[in-house]
Amino acid sequence: MDLETSPLARPFPDMPAIAGATPRIARAHYKDWDRCDLTFVELAEGTSVAGVFTRNVCCSSEVELGREQVKAGRARALVVNAGNSNAFTGYRGREAVEQIMAQVAGELGCAQEEVFVSSTGVIGVPLPKDKAKAGIDAVLQAAPCSWEDAALTISTTDTFAKGATASAIVDGKRVELVGIIKGSGMIAPDMATMLGYIFTDAAVEPAFLQQLLSASNTRSFNCITVDSDTSTSDTVLAFATGTAGNAPLTGFDDAGADAFAAALDQLCRELAHLVVRDGEGAQKFIEIAVSGAASDESAHRIALAIANSPLVKTAIAGEDANWGRVVMAVGKAGEPADRDTLSIGFGGVWAAKDGQPLADYDEAPVAEHLKGQDITIQVDIGLGGGCATVWTCDLTHGYISINADYRS
Amino acid sequence: MDLETSPLARPFPDMPAIAGATPRIARAHYKDWDRCDLTFVELAEGTSVAGVFTRNVCCSSEVELGREQVKAGRARALVVNAGNSNAFTGYRGREAVEQIMAQVAGELGCAQEEVFVSSTGVIGVPLPKDKAKAGIDAVLQAAPCSWEDAALTISTTDTFAKGATASAIVDGKRVELVGIIKGSGMIAPDMATMLGYIFTDAAVEPAFLQQLLSASNTRSFNCITVDSDTSTSDTVLAFATGTAGNAPLTGFDDAGADAFAAALDQLCRELAHLVVRDGEGAQKFIEIAVSGAASDESAHRIALAIANSPLVKTAIAGEDANWGRVVMAVGKAGEPADRDTLSIGFGGVWAAKDGQPLADYDEAPVAEHLKGQDITIQVDIGLGGGCATVWTCDLTHGYISINADYRS
Repeated sequence: MDLETSPLARPFPDMPAIAGATPRIARAHYKDWDRCDLTFVELAEGTSVAGVFTRNVCCSSEVELGREQVKAGRARALVVNAGNSNAFTGYRGREAVEQIMAQVAGELGCAQEEVFVSSTGVIGVPLPKDKAKAGIDAVLQAAPCSWEDAALTISTTDTFAKGATASAIVDGKRVELVGIIKGSGMIAPDMATMLGYIFTDAAVEPAFLQQLLSASNTRSFNCITVDSDTSTSDTVLAFATGTAGNAPLTGFDDAGADAFAAALDQLCRELAHLVVRDGEGAQKFIEIAVSGAASDESAHRIALAIANSPLVKTAIAGEDANWGRVVMAVGKAGEPADRDTLSIGFGGVWAAKDGQPLADYDEAPVAEHLKGQDITIQVDIGLGGGCATVWTCDLTHGYISINADYRS
Repeated sequence: MDLETSPLARPFPDMPAIAGATPRIARAHYKDWDRCDLTFVELAEGTSVAGVFTRNVCCSSEVELGREQVKAGRARALVVNAGNSNAFTGYRGREAVEQIMAQVAGELGCAQEEVFVSSTGVIGVPLPKDKAKAGIDAVLQAAPCSWEDAALTISTTDTFAKGATASAIVDGKRVELVGIIKGSGMIAPDMATMLGYIFTDAAVEPAFLQQLLSASNTRSFNCITVDSDTSTSDTVLAFATGTAGNAPLTGFDDAGADAFAAALDQLCRELAHLVVRDGEGAQKFIEIAVSGAASDESAHRIALAIANSPLVKTAIAGEDANWGRVVMAVGKAGEPADRDTLSIGFGGVWAAKDGQPLADYDEAPVAEHLKGQDITIQVDIGLGGGCATVWTCDLTHGYISINADYRS
């Protein structure tokens, strides 16, 4: 199945090299295809690592192991397998991951726990150990590659390579951050795995890096949804090689910590948006901003209820300013809301205020807004000061075609 | 927009008259159409009533009022408006409902609170009082009609009239139950309102009728989902006219109470299934049975997570035995589950057991099962004794066409 490039695609940016983080790619032939499907990133000694993982309780061995590994906070290598998610494969799947960790650790002379592995692709088939071994052998011989090649190699059914970059001045030094991500392009029986990797030459202590990544995650990756389904393998890892020469960041009191946090935040948000822009069948990018809720958490849950509503998503696909469906989604969220204080708008124009359609509501500018590719929905609950913003895409025939029409 | 009759439709059954419950229909012209859109059922003095309503906090005035009215337990009339849901219409919407209640109460010489009103259709437009008044005038002059005519008149974008019947022997008397329902046929900007009405000639005290309806509701209407969206107006009312002559049922110790409860249960389940069979774009009826969960409630939440997963629903549409997507849906439900004790089957054939694909899994009978119209998915969590069954339909291009391609 050939997928057309998403109409919401963005060109891959120019990305700087990160000293101490060297990507290489190779062919492990995890599927019957002729493309690179194994990504290897060698990391300098002393590299800090932090990670956030899926909450799906049926997670893969890679996720189980990764969750434990980040606690030690140090990494020397990342291996990403594409074409086989190795999820729901029992002890045989776990053995394959441990074999990769041992092989790489032997080559680099590091602890096995410093080798991070991710896999994405078909579920229920143990990752073949022989292919993994030959793939690692090959990638260790390969020349370094670009971040764009790495982004393409971690992809499965993504329709474009996704990367973003940011920088900050920390302790008088310029530090660079780069990120690559793969997203929600799924074909039966593959999974909607989101895998994201961030590399920076800044020196950041592991605990602080984890604190920053967790915080950025709540404002980025946890604020996007394509179809409400949660992969068994979702993973975002951040690696800080420390080669920029700044005094290691340990907390917000350190010089430049704020600047680094802001750069990481921006990078995570850009990467998250790119995943939505490659959502299956997506024709429109939708921002949903909720204000006036009982709390920020409540606003977040209301915003996600709207973003996950098939009726709201199909209305946007149909370029229909259907605020009634937004009302319905607010009401079903199970959060404090009052029909008679609720206001709803599109593209900055209120359609309904305080529980009633506006008497002088002019649909013309709203209709024009909905014809565009970037849609905004504003919802004010009218109860408190809680705010949240989430991002999603519309629900189109393309989603059905990708997920139903093609058989595994 | 003309919708084709659902391929899952069932013929309308022969339904008995219920002494003391007389349906009539008329044209109120709530929309620019030439069809009956106002249903009126006159109920004998002393009729008991019970009701269950949407939990959507942005509910309509009809739901707000109905919730209060059932507490008194007595009904003399039901009015159902089709073409206008009167939801999100503020005080003007409420005035229209109270006008209808007052007009009917004046005609019948009953208390206003004994007149129950439901509305379904466009949202955000106050129900026009003049049309409602003329419609009530007309329906009071109309001849009694059949239950099938009533079922057609409460419909909006349903593709077939939906009704079911049951009977029981109570206190030596045969009692009849009939039910009509409208379901999840939605067109922008209409809502997915489910309205169901049950009539019986049995004598049942209101409190016991409410207890029975609430219990049946948890096993029927609360176990179906088309697209996870919850209408602002969902309502099921049960009316017991008491004309069958049995000693009024007051609790399970009364003769025939078990038989009546079983009949009501069966009726509710049949009506709920009919709603799924008219789900938008539905090509397949799906039963999801979860066992081995930590509790029945946990099993119910897991079953609904599967039933609401767009990836599972599109897989069934594609006749794809994609158990990996079922694993994902179990894992995201947020309920106790263990990947390594999880088993999944289709049509009675296990595909995966104890967290791994079955070595001798024969996909042929499963593939054959998935080609049919009635699909079953079995999930065993392997943790406890909790069980639940829910019903849904597949997610097809028809759903997108109905909800996105046609503009309001």
